[in-house]
Amino acid sequence: MLRVGLLGAGRIGQVHAVNIAGNAGSTLAAVSDFNKEAAETLAAKYGAAARDTADILADDSIDAVLVATSTDTHSDLIEAATAAGKAVLCEKPVDLSLERAKACLAKSAPTGAPVMIGFNRRFDPNFAAVKAAAEAGEIGKSEMLSVTSFDPAPPPVSYIKVSGGLFRDMMIHDFDMANFIMGSLPVSVQAVGTSIVDPEIGAAGDVDTAIVTLRYADGRLAVIRNSRRAVYGYDQRVELLGSDGLLSADNILENTVSKSTVAGVTAAKPEFFFLERYMRAYAIEWQAFLDAVSGGTPMPVSLEDGIAALALAEAATESASTGQPVEIAL
Amino acid sequence: MLRVGLLGAGRIGQVHAVNIAGNAGSTLAAVSDFNKEAAETLAAKYGAAARDTADILADDSIDAVLVATSTDTHSDLIEAATAAGKAVLCEKPVDLSLERAKACLAKSAPTGAPVMIGFNRRFDPNFAAVKAAAEAGEIGKSEMLSVTSFDPAPPPVSYIKVSGGLFRDMMIHDFDMANFIMGSLPVSVQAVGTSIVDPEIGAAGDVDTAIVTLRYADGRLAVIRNSRRAVYGYDQRVELLGSDGLLSADNILENTVSKSTVAGVTAAKPEFFFLERYMRAYAIEWQAFLDAVSGGTPMPVSLEDGIAALALAEAATESASTGQPVEIAL
Amino acid sequence: MLRVGLLGAGRIGQVHAVNIAGNAGSTLAAVSDFNKEAAETLAAKYGAAARDTADILADDSIDAVLVATSTDTHSDLIEAATAAGKAVLCEKPVDLSLERAKACLAKSAPTGAPVMIGFNRRFDPNFAAVKAAAEAGEIGKSEMLSVTSFDPAPPPVSYIKVSGGLFRDMMIHDFDMANFIMGSLPVSVQAVGTSIVDPEIGAAGDVDTAIVTLRYADGRLAVIRNSRRAVYGYDQRVELLGSDGLLSADNILENTVSKSTVAGVTAAKPEFFFLERYMRAYAIEWQAFLDAVSGGTPMPVSLEDGIAALALAEAATESASTGQPVEIAL
Amino acid sequence: MLRVGLLGAGRIGQVHAVNIAGNAGSTLAAVSDFNKEAAETLAAKYGAAARDTADILADDSIDAVLVATSTDTHSDLIEAATAAGKAVLCEKPVDLSLERAKACLAKSAPTGAPVMIGFNRRFDPNFAAVKAAAEAGEIGKSEMLSVTSFDPAPPPVSYIKVSGGLFRDMMIHDFDMANFIMGSLPVSVQAVGTSIVDPEIGAAGDVDTAIVTLRYADGRLAVIRNSRRAVYGYDQRVELLGSDGLLSADNILENTVSKSTVAGVTAAKPEFFFLERYMRAYAIEWQAFLDAVSGGTPMPVSLEDGIAALALAEAATESASTGQPVEIAL
Repeated sequence: MLRVGLLGAGRIGQVHAVNIAGNAGSTLAAVSDFNKEAAETLAAKYGAAARDTADILADDSIDAVLVATSTDTHSDLIEAATAAGKAVLCEKPVDLSLERAKACLAKSAPTGAPVMIGFNRRFDPNFAAVKAAAEAGEIGKSEMLSVTSFDPAPPPVSYIKVSGGLFRDMMIHDFDMANFIMGSLPVSVQAVGTSIVDPEIGAAGDVDTAIVTLRYADGRLAVIRNSRRAVYGYDQRVELLGSDGLLSADNILENTVSKSTVAGVTAAKPEFFFLERYMRAYAIEWQAFLDAVSGGTPMPVSLEDGIAALALAEAATESASTGQPVEIAL
Repeated sequence: MLRVGLLGAGRIGQVHAVNIAGNAGSTLAAVSDFNKEAAETLAAKYGAAARDTADILADDSIDAVLVATSTDTHSDLIEAATAAGKAVLCEKPVDLSLERAKACLAKSAPTGAPVMIGFNRRFDPNFAAVKAAAEAGEIGKSEMLSVTSFDPAPPPVSYIKVSGGLFRDMMIHDFDMANFIMGSLPVSVQAVGTSIVDPEIGAAGDVDTAIVTLRYADGRLAVIRNSRRAVYGYDQRVELLGSDGLLSADNILENTVSKSTVAGVTAAKPEFFFLERYMRAYAIEWQAFLDAVSGGTPMPVSLEDGIAALALAEAATESASTGQPVEIAL
Repeated sequence: MLRVGLLGAGRIGQVHAVNIAGNAGSTLAAVSDFNKEAAETLAAKYGAAARDTADILADDSIDAVLVATSTDTHSDLIEAATAAGKAVLCEKPVDLSLERAKACLAKSAPTGAPVMIGFNRRFDPNFAAVKAAAEAGEIGKSEMLSVTSFDPAPPPVSYIKVSGGLFRDMMIHDFDMANFIMGSLPVSVQAVGTSIVDPEIGAAGDVDTAIVTLRYADGRLAVIRNSRRAVYGYDQRVELLGSDGLLSADNILENTVSKSTVAGVTAAKPEFFFLERYMRAYAIEWQAFLDAVSGGTPMPVSLEDGIAALALAEAATESASTGQPVEIAL
Repeated sequence: MLRVGLLGAGRIGQVHAVNIAGNAGSTLAAVSDFNKEAAETLAAKYGAAARDTADILADDSIDAVLVATSTDTHSDLIEAATAAGKAVLCEKPVDLSLERAKACLAKSAPTGAPVMIGFNRRFDPNFAAVKAAAEAGEIGKSEMLSVTSFDPAPPPVSYIKVSGGLFRDMMIHDFDMANFIMGSLPVSVQAVGTSIVDPEIGAAGDVDTAIVTLRYADGRLAVIRNSRRAVYGYDQRVELLGSDGLLSADNILENTVSKSTVAGVTAAKPEFFFLERYMRAYAIEWQAFLDAVSGGTPMPVSLEDGIAALALAEAATESASTGQPVEIAL
């Protein structure tokens, strides 16, 4: 039974709390948050203790921490927790700075404490099935990957300003998906971006709509499409063309009902946003972390994976700004 | 090159004219209709002659006739045309009276002239694929057939009154589909019907909505659903459950475009009615007739098939009226 | 916080235990089972006590019981629990005997204790959406309902022999679905059945494949199709034709991945069986029970509803045997 | 009745011959081909005369010519035919050289003879429906277009060598689709290409797989994906994201049949290649040409449109080679 400290009691922390508490292999032992009330409310719900982060890290009865705090604290907390010998599951991204993330790896790796980055989409059963089918050779040799990833609505511009930009904040998930499915890093990144959804986002120095193409050393290609706004819901699709066929993972719809009238045939929309779409993925992710910790096996998504996605995000940010392709060298 | 006389220049006659004239193996030589102007207009379009029916039947240069006149003339024309040695493709149904249809068979069979009944749906590529897959054993042993057949809108009540009723006029297509897919006649028929779409149809002694179940000697079952009104278009589906799986033929939609908005995902409706849905089937049907005539092979849909469907229609009419199952004995 | 005693620690009891324990409004206080070890194991998992049924019913601190025992004990337990003032959620069917079920109602109703029957499919979000759309008038006036309900594989013949037969054991769910969607009882039932899946089932006096048609006083019709075997998974669909359109609830697939190769486009199968397909429905069902108990509002599925479904099952059993339609009078 | 001369009796010429001859508004008067036998065979089928091209152009009784010869003759034939006062429908592309195509426009425009370029996909009812819905504002303001266009199998390398390359030979259709849907030219083009399907294609200096992104002056983006090989059939899809929703035109499948077994649910593949998929589009295209000629209205796809698509193809060819974005200035 893994005793877990949850750092961060916000929206995503609450999702993790359900899985930690509900899993037969783990107990939610403690919760911390800079907002003490939030920590107390969440802790109470699961019979856990609301405590300071330092306190939790110093407690030898805590085996692992889940880092669900704001991005700017991730690197520090990974370093502190691994130094304290805790297993760590940290929400993505590792950091907004590639340099800082690399430093975090340099510091935490020698501790030997396992660190996993929370790229939840790898645990979506649909995307995982695409990966498995491709690896099983069901479509022969992979040639071209397409990732579609549209949010239902943009966040407030105030958030945009501190987000690190669309490529680091949003497309980083899709970069990791490309790394996951393709199994290696691209050699070059080309990006175009625009702020057509909301000019305020452009005024804040960011884009809200972008297309990125990736080129791999062996000739494979990939393309990622992002938009901050798809009014019909969270559009999350993956398509992989190979020498023997095509694999497609489509959206999960709100229900299976269709209505046929003189106006056409109307079906349900995609699940609204990540909490709905990836609810199952978060539970599977937590189980995967537990399995790796208890089995002493490699983390299914490593800190290095987090850095790789960040490197692509940084390159895309540069490419979208200069209009030039950017070479990837990690 | 088969020289063809078309008897009947109405809506369905015009559909056949296109296929007769457009096929490299046949020529539209003559057209007749009790409305002489209609015959002349249609004949002119294809360089054919507008003539009397008797004239056409007496003309030895005419090899075949397509009977597309009103139902009450079918039996007489089949008899006259086969007596004149013509190959005959006659629109369904053979007759509204099972007794009369049997007499027609008795009279025409000895002439040796080939007679085909125009059950166009057998030539729909989708239903034909279901039949082929079932015969190839792709779903093991067949167990339960379901036929869905809804028209977009009811005909005028004036037509209903002379139609012979829903079972002879509309469901006869589905009885033939059951005979086609199942490959044998059921032993018993149970029907329920209602005039819920339009009480005027009920007042005219007919039903507009009906469900019929068929029981086969070997234990197989089938169900047919009919409605005179599906406002979203012509709903034409077949489903066959077998020991190793399910075959489903779904509707053909007007196009492949979908629109995703906050209101849901809207796709196109089924093709509107039989002229749209079965346009290809009519051309394939004509080709099948030509092939059988020129090859001297058995007609793909025989006069006996027409009688079999009529027998089921008659039984269903009786069952819907008495509430009792009716045994089938041909 | 409702304190709940769970009677029955088998497969379905375990599903309910998760929901009782996981729901913020209820606690799993006690578990009983004739197999004491099963009760103890399940109780331990949720910090509940393993006790005798009589003990649980006699405990005033227990507010409600969930009856998940074998069918032959349902009526007795409903009577005993309501006599003890407990709210009851009882698995379907109420009983295999319509007469006994009616007696149970007569005895339990005067206690005033609320009784709900666990027709889980009413709480499936897809079927509930069909019901809601129909009631909102989205397809005008309802005319014809179709319920498809195929199990992946037949149970052992030993189970079949004590099951009460396909109509009482399996189709009873679909009778309740018809009652739920149509909002009233049919006036007449016609059934055909066959043992084409497994002759052993026929030898045991039961059928494994059946089609039932229902006729309503206002002219509406319904048809239910059942098979004990659909090798591709649990096939659970509902279709409602109305004057302004069609509502269809389709299957939930195992995932959204499709693979296109030279062999065709292959997608996932339906969820395997009821535990997969209706997992969400069971949680929603429990919430609905809690809401009704705490709000003092009518049970969403009453004991009378359980009796109505049973009456249809009994009529269908008779009709399949005699070949005659059976009138419904409750 | 437009009298038409068909220049070129190859595969695509034969497709046009059917439509010219079958249309009530046109007659196939003459056919030419450098292979005289091919011209004679095709002409005989439709009662036309096999003649020399020069002869056809000199014949004042010929109103229009359809140019279906090899690409290197297009510009010359457009110039000669317009000089002779014929209306021209010329297969795509205008030319492999942008400069030559512009010279062709400069020479042919002053004659006043109407010239249409055969971008058949504009007449596909699905893509036309996307265009119409977008123009009707059904998804608000357009933001991002995606065009997927995969051939079933690559042509022989001998053809590749004279094709002008993937961007001019294959993706030119998709550039025109972008111009058609977006209604204006992009300002910049970025391309990546690879010869992953067949290294021989790379050795011949071409690519077989490519992704191109387009940037528009108003901030809109587009992406085109091409592969010379999709073993499951001709993959032709369009997707347009707008401020109020998404429009998607999906593939047309070979039939509507699906088979559900323990192995999954298998449906039909997309139509095999352009002759199957765009059969209807070719007929609609011919009707559109006839309507514009007879009505004296602007050609639905002008010579300028052909030049615009060629300009994008040339820019993409350069970008794929240099790795740099290329600005578009016509």
